[in-house]
Amino acid sequence: MRHQAAGSPPLWAVIPAGGAGTRLWPISRSTRPKFLLPLLGERSLLQQTVDRLAGLVAPERTLVVCGPAHAAQIARQLPELPADNILVEPAPRSSGPAIGLAAALIDRREPGAVMGSFAADHDVRDGAAFARAVRVAVAAAQEDSLVTIGRAPARPETGYGYIERTDEVVVETDEGSAFRASCFHEKPDREQAAGYLASGRYLWNASMFVWRAGTLLREMGRLQPELHAGVVRIAAGWETVERENLTTSLWAALPESSIDQGVLERAERVAVVPAAMGWSDVGDWHGLGDLLDHDHAGNSVRGELVQIGTTNSAVWSETGRLIALVGLDNVVVVDAPDALLVADRTKAQQVRHLVNRLREAGHGERL
Amino acid sequence: MRHQAAGSPPLWAVIPAGGAGTRLWPISRSTRPKFLLPLLGERSLLQQTVDRLAGLVAPERTLVVCGPAHAAQIARQLPELPADNILVEPAPRSSGPAIGLAAALIDRREPGAVMGSFAADHDVRDGAAFARAVRVAVAAAQEDSLVTIGRAPARPETGYGYIERTDEVVVETDEGSAFRASCFHEKPDREQAAGYLASGRYLWNASMFVWRAGTLLREMGRLQPELHAGVVRIAAGWETVERENLTTSLWAALPESSIDQGVLERAERVAVVPAAMGWSDVGDWHGLGDLLDHDHAGNSVRGELVQIGTTNSAVWSETGRLIALVGLDNVVVVDAPDALLVADRTKAQQVRHLVNRLREAGHGERL
Repeated sequence: MRHQAAGSPPLWAVIPAGGAGTRLWPISRSTRPKFLLPLLGERSLLQQTVDRLAGLVAPERTLVVCGPAHAAQIARQLPELPADNILVEPAPRSSGPAIGLAAALIDRREPGAVMGSFAADHDVRDGAAFARAVRVAVAAAQEDSLVTIGRAPARPETGYGYIERTDEVVVETDEGSAFRASCFHEKPDREQAAGYLASGRYLWNASMFVWRAGTLLREMGRLQPELHAGVVRIAAGWETVERENLTTSLWAALPESSIDQGVLERAERVAVVPAAMGWSDVGDWHGLGDLLDHDHAGNSVRGELVQIGTTNSAVWSETGRLIALVGLDNVVVVDAPDALLVADRTKAQQVRHLVNRLREAGHGERL
Repeated sequence: MRHQAAGSPPLWAVIPAGGAGTRLWPISRSTRPKFLLPLLGERSLLQQTVDRLAGLVAPERTLVVCGPAHAAQIARQLPELPADNILVEPAPRSSGPAIGLAAALIDRREPGAVMGSFAADHDVRDGAAFARAVRVAVAAAQEDSLVTIGRAPARPETGYGYIERTDEVVVETDEGSAFRASCFHEKPDREQAAGYLASGRYLWNASMFVWRAGTLLREMGRLQPELHAGVVRIAAGWETVERENLTTSLWAALPESSIDQGVLERAERVAVVPAAMGWSDVGDWHGLGDLLDHDHAGNSVRGELVQIGTTNSAVWSETGRLIALVGLDNVVVVDAPDALLVADRTKAQQVRHLVNRLREAGHGERL
């Protein structure tokens, strides 16, 4: 089927701003998580996410779903958004309830509208490729598909989930095509990841979704009727005096589930748009180091570094202190005012366990 | 020759407090060098040096030779010393002039006196063995030898100088013997060091010297007549109104030379007392790490550490920050308020080059 995206109805966007980014401790903190931080430039990852949508989505159609602890900071970082577009969850229930509530609100405000969901704390290097992929996805969404956007894998990555696609074209536009998706896969082991890369049919799951709000709600109603009933009921009272009562009484009882597992993995008519957009989840210090500029020795530095015989290392300092490294390879040094992290880059994922241990040991003030 | 140390005349001590300890940067600084720091306990290395001499040397016979920048701190750290016993060099000229001036002053105050010279920034684990060795050395010094005290090597160390001894006994006491020394050797390479260790005739040069002040002055007069004339002339005016004039005019012209190279390596009648006293020069972070207590994973920690999979590493924090290490082996982390050092322990010697580089780059305020 051939399709022109031009003339589409205005797109809505929802940005779930959850997740603590614990693997980026000690810079990412519970009160100032990853998405609020300017990790890749002058603007925060959240601001860059909104910037990336410029030309695709108007600010008045951009919703951010967040927790109570972050609403004020988000409101300050995104002054162009109407205050009502910052939806505050009373408690985190994973992405299913967050995106479901946004869909229910959008469907009430503009029946038939197409919405996209984009994580608040990921990076995309090629904004033009991203925009093209979104327009292709919108075209497929208008055909009632649940559409994901995936990145062609650059390496046998074991830290990401994968989407397996078929060769069946769902929609074809001047800017690219959407294909029928066949399966979602959780993070693979090394051997599986190598097989995925070789096959050419697997894409990194970038947590980017485009659909009609109504299509999602229909599938959610079929697959998760309890969740569907809850978000529809909360949305119905959202603009009324009942909002606080509804969120207090209903929200905590919603089943906690991700949109991937709750809906997408079991839904009909799921499509995927492959996009060479340089996506990354900025998941840990190893990955962030890769995204920063490198010097001739392979070191990426934010701060003041003097080194002897040190290679392939990443330094991130927020204290203004001089960082001196001698004879090291492949380490990451993260220097915060109240904590210092030094890690082997290949083990940067384990920072999450470190944070768990600190929590158990009562170091809450540093998390 | 059999000798009893009992009944010896009172011993004098001189403690040359020079050297910046640059390999212990960023804790050791030019304004607060290694010997002023409590690196191994509550008291500074200088204070521990004086403590170690308790019972051997009275405070009024203990002299410290230092630079202008450190005189006041030394006076505060050693309140038991008469202020006049803190000899301030206008400029560093290495150990030859410092020890020579002290010898000239001691010889004027108490002709025939025996003096010992002990570095201000070394560590000795076994104080009783040290005291025994000093008493043996005093006995040999009374026979007009220039006596050194050396430690039997514990490993094929390439970071120390060595003293080669003969089997000729210079003096024998109930507490040990002094042997004729045959040669001084600079820091060896790995292969040489292994040969030294195997031979059993080589001792680590611990920079500990015992002699009659008059014996040293006589040998200095023979081997370094210019230096000898200078220190004798300064000593003659030391207690007079001329001191400032003399030090200003003569001191800077004294030939810069270490007591080892200027006198000992060329002198006659040099003896050495072997001592199993657990001596170390506390030279770099690797060596200091070895001297600190270790946990079950081989980590030595001063500060607050949380770690995952980290072994044989040394942490020294002076900031109160939490230090988190992940997946590292054999590193040293030194956390000062204005600078952070992370180094491979086997390359800890290179911290000296780092400091040189910082000096050249105009980072004087951090050195």
